[in-house]
Amino acid sequence: MVTNEQRLACAYLLKVGEPPAPALRSFVSEHGVVAAAEAVRSGEVPDSVATETSARRHIDTAAEDLAAAKSVGARLVTPEDEDWPAWPLLPLTNAAARGLKWASPPLGLWVRGSASLEESLQRAVSVVGARAATSYGEHVAAEMGYGLASRGMTVVSGAAYGIDGAAHKGALNANGRTAAVLACGIDRAYPAGHSTLIDRIAAQGLVLTEYPPGTPPARHRFLVRNRIIAALGAGTVVVEAGQRSGARNTAASAAALGRVLMVVPGPVTSAMSMGCHDLLREGLATSVSSVAEIIESVGLFGEDLVTKPDSAARPTDGLDSEALRVHEALEPRVAHAAERIAEASGVPLSRVRALLPALELTGLAERCESGWRRAKEPV
Amino acid sequence: MVTNEQRLACAYLLKVGEPPAPALRSFVSEHGVVAAAEAVRSGEVPDSVATETSARRHIDTAAEDLAAAKSVGARLVTPEDEDWPAWPLLPLTNAAARGLKWASPPLGLWVRGSASLEESLQRAVSVVGARAATSYGEHVAAEMGYGLASRGMTVVSGAAYGIDGAAHKGALNANGRTAAVLACGIDRAYPAGHSTLIDRIAAQGLVLTEYPPGTPPARHRFLVRNRIIAALGAGTVVVEAGQRSGARNTAASAAALGRVLMVVPGPVTSAMSMGCHDLLREGLATSVSSVAEIIESVGLFGEDLVTKPDSAARPTDGLDSEALRVHEALEPRVAHAAERIAEASGVPLSRVRALLPALELTGLAERCESGWRRAKEPV
Repeated sequence: MVTNEQRLACAYLLKVGEPPAPALRSFVSEHGVVAAAEAVRSGEVPDSVATETSARRHIDTAAEDLAAAKSVGARLVTPEDEDWPAWPLLPLTNAAARGLKWASPPLGLWVRGSASLEESLQRAVSVVGARAATSYGEHVAAEMGYGLASRGMTVVSGAAYGIDGAAHKGALNANGRTAAVLACGIDRAYPAGHSTLIDRIAAQGLVLTEYPPGTPPARHRFLVRNRIIAALGAGTVVVEAGQRSGARNTAASAAALGRVLMVVPGPVTSAMSMGCHDLLREGLATSVSSVAEIIESVGLFGEDLVTKPDSAARPTDGLDSEALRVHEALEPRVAHAAERIAEASGVPLSRVRALLPALELTGLAERCESGWRRAKEPV
Repeated sequence: MVTNEQRLACAYLLKVGEPPAPALRSFVSEHGVVAAAEAVRSGEVPDSVATETSARRHIDTAAEDLAAAKSVGARLVTPEDEDWPAWPLLPLTNAAARGLKWASPPLGLWVRGSASLEESLQRAVSVVGARAATSYGEHVAAEMGYGLASRGMTVVSGAAYGIDGAAHKGALNANGRTAAVLACGIDRAYPAGHSTLIDRIAAQGLVLTEYPPGTPPARHRFLVRNRIIAALGAGTVVVEAGQRSGARNTAASAAALGRVLMVVPGPVTSAMSMGCHDLLREGLATSVSSVAEIIESVGLFGEDLVTKPDSAARPTDGLDSEALRVHEALEPRVAHAAERIAEASGVPLSRVRALLPALELTGLAERCESGWRRAKEPV
């Protein structure tokens, strides 16, 4: 059980420390959230923590923030909560421990949506991409969102225009689960044109952010937010990305976190696929063309290896190269003697004499009075 | 200098041994072409050679074949000729020596076109793909054929409909070099609808085949021919390929020969790109989106590393994360005191006071009576 004091302390620290706040995060882990908040408030903290907290430590809006969240149907989930997604966030903790400061995990998460955070994120795939997506990219993102959600996966993305929105919508259309990670306060809808979509996501899935209510989106916050998207999916699929794009930042984060990085190929004539192809070419990502390939790549279900659609079998499929050459040397209408077939195929006469009856048995050759001809292929 | 006797012997053996004839090829290497032909003709050869030659050893049309070739402006190039492309064919010799019988090099090549074989193939790239190509695939193949030829590369392909034809045409349109490797006699045009194209290739580049004049195309001959296409290019680019296609066979040959295998990505919604994406996914091929990337991949010119087109630089590009946060916290119209900016950005006040004048110097911030605001971004 989380005490009211702990939740207030968490809300206070989320307001004071602009994420990622790696020193503050370590300080909280070491001293507990209540003692850490008290120390921050009084300014009696190590220099590294002071750097991250001095600008705002006098601002304590914890109670107001919790009330503001409540008024939009949101709650604050802290690491002390049972529903905290510790397992999906573990790559951030590990990366931060390896010295990647940008990867420091959030101090808490503001959440809209009644679904369980921990359960929803057990099987999740992140689908991201360009805002200025093409209709091809949006089509593929929607199909993948739909297919992943239909197979019980939660589709994580950033609620942006273009690929993000298409992926969320695909999942919603499948009546599946989807989670949007915002770069602003939980009481804000950004982009404004997606406010209805964000409401639908909250109703059917989850909307999350580490930013306290009222926080406006800002460019650096999108980049910081991307580490959470990259962490929450067992893998990240980049559907379309220009050569310079936020999606490439999420991709780089996913790779650095040891998450499976996947890209969807597209026309080489499309600028919006250039970022994807670069990631492929640099060997950083796997190519995925279907939901089955995504699930195979993230390896969540061992049994879900991709089975290729059967390509049409040909009656000559089982033939070895000599038999194939003899079969090719047969003409469909005119019959020829074995000697002539040996010459045409270059296969020794003795082998031709052995192979022709075998081809007859499998229905590929016909014996006539004047020799052998090719049988009509079965329809 | 090649003697008439040697050329006749080579023509005789090309007629007798259906390619690839690995035992015959070794036998010729060991004994010389004239003695080998004599032994084959008399039937006094090891069993392995007899298997490859007994069906046709009684047919000696060498003189007629040379005459038929001459009548269509073709010549026979033998391994004894100065113009023999020994270097491009070396991967076949090496693979055959490793026991890959299908890779046995040709005994000789029938050639149309006045260009030097050896010189033309010094810098060559093979471009192959589906016959049932899409307009996307044909467009990309033509562009790549044009671009490679413009940069002095010879474009090798198989003269088929679809990708092959588009690649040849692209090279011809650049007034560059292109080489078509046929799976039938040099006096035949297959497919018939490409007879004009094949004539144009012969006039401007090269048409080659190991099959003697009069040989009809046959399914197994396309597969056998593909090893030569795979060998002659320093790398092979598959532009489009279905999941089961001849292009995939050429791709597998190129990979087995140690040649660079490249594929062009395409829409995942296109069946004609599935073979390419499978090769990518299986880690067998490199993704290429441009001529520059092909040339970089084949590594023919060390200096030709791909330079990315400059993406538009932003004035904030050089800023570190604290400066970026301070800049984001500035408003374009309303000026604020440094204290307020410290709160909004979460950056310590002392750092904000140092960063604001720095941002002013680079034209990103403006000092006003009431504090600081964001400067208009330079157009």
